[in-house]
Amino acid sequence: MSQTVYDVIGVGNAIVDVIASCDDAFLKAQKIEKGAMTLIDETRASELYGAMAPGKEVSGGSAANTLAGIASFGARGAYIGKVAGDELGGIFRHDLNAAGVDYTTAPLTDGPLTARCLINVTPDAQRSMSTFLGASVFFSGDDIDADKIASARITYLEGYLFDRDEAKEAFVKAAEIAKAANRLTSLTLSDSFCVDRHRAAFRQLVRNHIDILFANEAELVSLYEADGFDEALDAVKAETRIAAITRSEKGAVLIDRGETLSIPAEPVSKVIDTTGAGDLFAAGMLTGLARGHDLETSGRLGAIAAAEIISHIGARPNVSLKLLAETYGIEIGD
Amino acid sequence: MSQTVYDVIGVGNAIVDVIASCDDAFLKAQKIEKGAMTLIDETRASELYGAMAPGKEVSGGSAANTLAGIASFGARGAYIGKVAGDELGGIFRHDLNAAGVDYTTAPLTDGPLTARCLINVTPDAQRSMSTFLGASVFFSGDDIDADKIASARITYLEGYLFDRDEAKEAFVKAAEIAKAANRLTSLTLSDSFCVDRHRAAFRQLVRNHIDILFANEAELVSLYEADGFDEALDAVKAETRIAAITRSEKGAVLIDRGETLSIPAEPVSKVIDTTGAGDLFAAGMLTGLARGHDLETSGRLGAIAAAEIISHIGARPNVSLKLLAETYGIEIGD
Repeated sequence: MSQTVYDVIGVGNAIVDVIASCDDAFLKAQKIEKGAMTLIDETRASELYGAMAPGKEVSGGSAANTLAGIASFGARGAYIGKVAGDELGGIFRHDLNAAGVDYTTAPLTDGPLTARCLINVTPDAQRSMSTFLGASVFFSGDDIDADKIASARITYLEGYLFDRDEAKEAFVKAAEIAKAANRLTSLTLSDSFCVDRHRAAFRQLVRNHIDILFANEAELVSLYEADGFDEALDAVKAETRIAAITRSEKGAVLIDRGETLSIPAEPVSKVIDTTGAGDLFAAGMLTGLARGHDLETSGRLGAIAAAEIISHIGARPNVSLKLLAETYGIEIGD
Repeated sequence: MSQTVYDVIGVGNAIVDVIASCDDAFLKAQKIEKGAMTLIDETRASELYGAMAPGKEVSGGSAANTLAGIASFGARGAYIGKVAGDELGGIFRHDLNAAGVDYTTAPLTDGPLTARCLINVTPDAQRSMSTFLGASVFFSGDDIDADKIASARITYLEGYLFDRDEAKEAFVKAAEIAKAANRLTSLTLSDSFCVDRHRAAFRQLVRNHIDILFANEAELVSLYEADGFDEALDAVKAETRIAAITRSEKGAVLIDRGETLSIPAEPVSKVIDTTGAGDLFAAGMLTGLARGHDLETSGRLGAIAAAEIISHIGARPNVSLKLLAETYGIEIGD
């Protein structure tokens, strides 16, 4: 095994979020599926943006949010993902580096703009995402830094990458490098519609390559085309070592070698924006596992990070998660 | 007098804000004057941005913030200001249009990038601004739409425009058109260092062209090189009809034809970010005056808008100021 340099390396779609408020009538008029992530092309992105309320631009991307959270816990993280050489790409790079994440993937020199996710947040704090993938899927095997992956305790892969073949290849290459280096691999299913689009490929990947699976209830049920949550849980127990199934305000169900553990959600005084709740649950869980904490403590770190993120607009932490964890009596350690 | 189309038209530097948290040590290390606005060039902007924490990008610009506030009160506003044809310029344009402000100034086709203001917010909620003016000062008399200005009840000018000669000319032209159309003119002094750089020109403008002056204590004292606030107040009484002097948590002092009126600050449960407090005070005050409210009600609208803006990150309102004013029993009217 190579020398350990990183706790976690993430591979994902490098995306800048454009966050605006809207009402339910707006979602209906724009034919946006509430709570889901829908892929859109550049023309539609331009049209939808024109109709949206004034926005805030913040760096996003599911795995990138997770890595920013891991760095906030004081763990060592790296990220692989593709932006264009434009202003939003510069913003994405700055924000990840400034968060303390190693991120050096070369920008796309000839191709579409940096990816953007148009997020409309309704008064019930639900986010509905319309994503123009742009440059983010134009990365190839050459962008997968084998040395970095081999030196990371956990390689974390974002299911959204399955939406384009070019990115999927890079994805599988990363998983294979990690396995060859005797490292752990982790996957988040990202979105139930994404699972629906790529069910067979996901099931094969989970069965053959993945040690730690993240999903929410809908995604897990979709993966196994199960009749309910319990049936889906039984299916995943047979196929992965560790799984973390997030259930919004009901907390999370963790599985480790067939054993089941429930983690309650951390109470929050007011839910402002649920964007990034799953990403940050993964950040806490992966930090805990990479630093040798037990399953329950790792799950609690996930719940703590998720509670912080839904208490404000945006999917990256506003406070030091390391210090926040300490207020719960959890020292991250080295 | 032309037919009234707008309550207020603003002329200002079109700027995107990049807002990040920092501590006092960071300001010291970066030699940033706390609480002030410092002009920087593109090289320094790039260097400072590289050192800053992860940020949020939101449209800013002092007069543009004021116009967004005026639109949020349900009044009719227009804006004149220059962006480049780049992504940040597109964001600025979208956000102002989406806020309901008429904004059609053509983008700069050949020149520097869209202006950006790097705002570092310390834990005491003070903002220290480093501004790269970029494209914002490259607008000429041709960009000053005489018909729009002549059709607005109040033309509102941002003192920051004095920092470049090209912009200052456009500024004076706008004031002259407004006067010729028998409209009211208003000016905000913007920043005490800005006043210091252009004192003689500001005093001449205030004496000859301005009906409604906005300033904070430091700016007013600097304008008249006064020995204290009372001396500065006496000086401004002799030179303008209406003046609004904001004093942070002490509220505001309003002057109308020599009479003085105090407006208390609206209490806020927690001050998060003072960016835009002055801009939004002006939004409330100008809305009130344009819609025929008395001085005290206009000042209260200013205090209500300022309290909303300092309760969250960013310098544009998060809620409808029209509805917020109604909770205080103030109907904006037509």
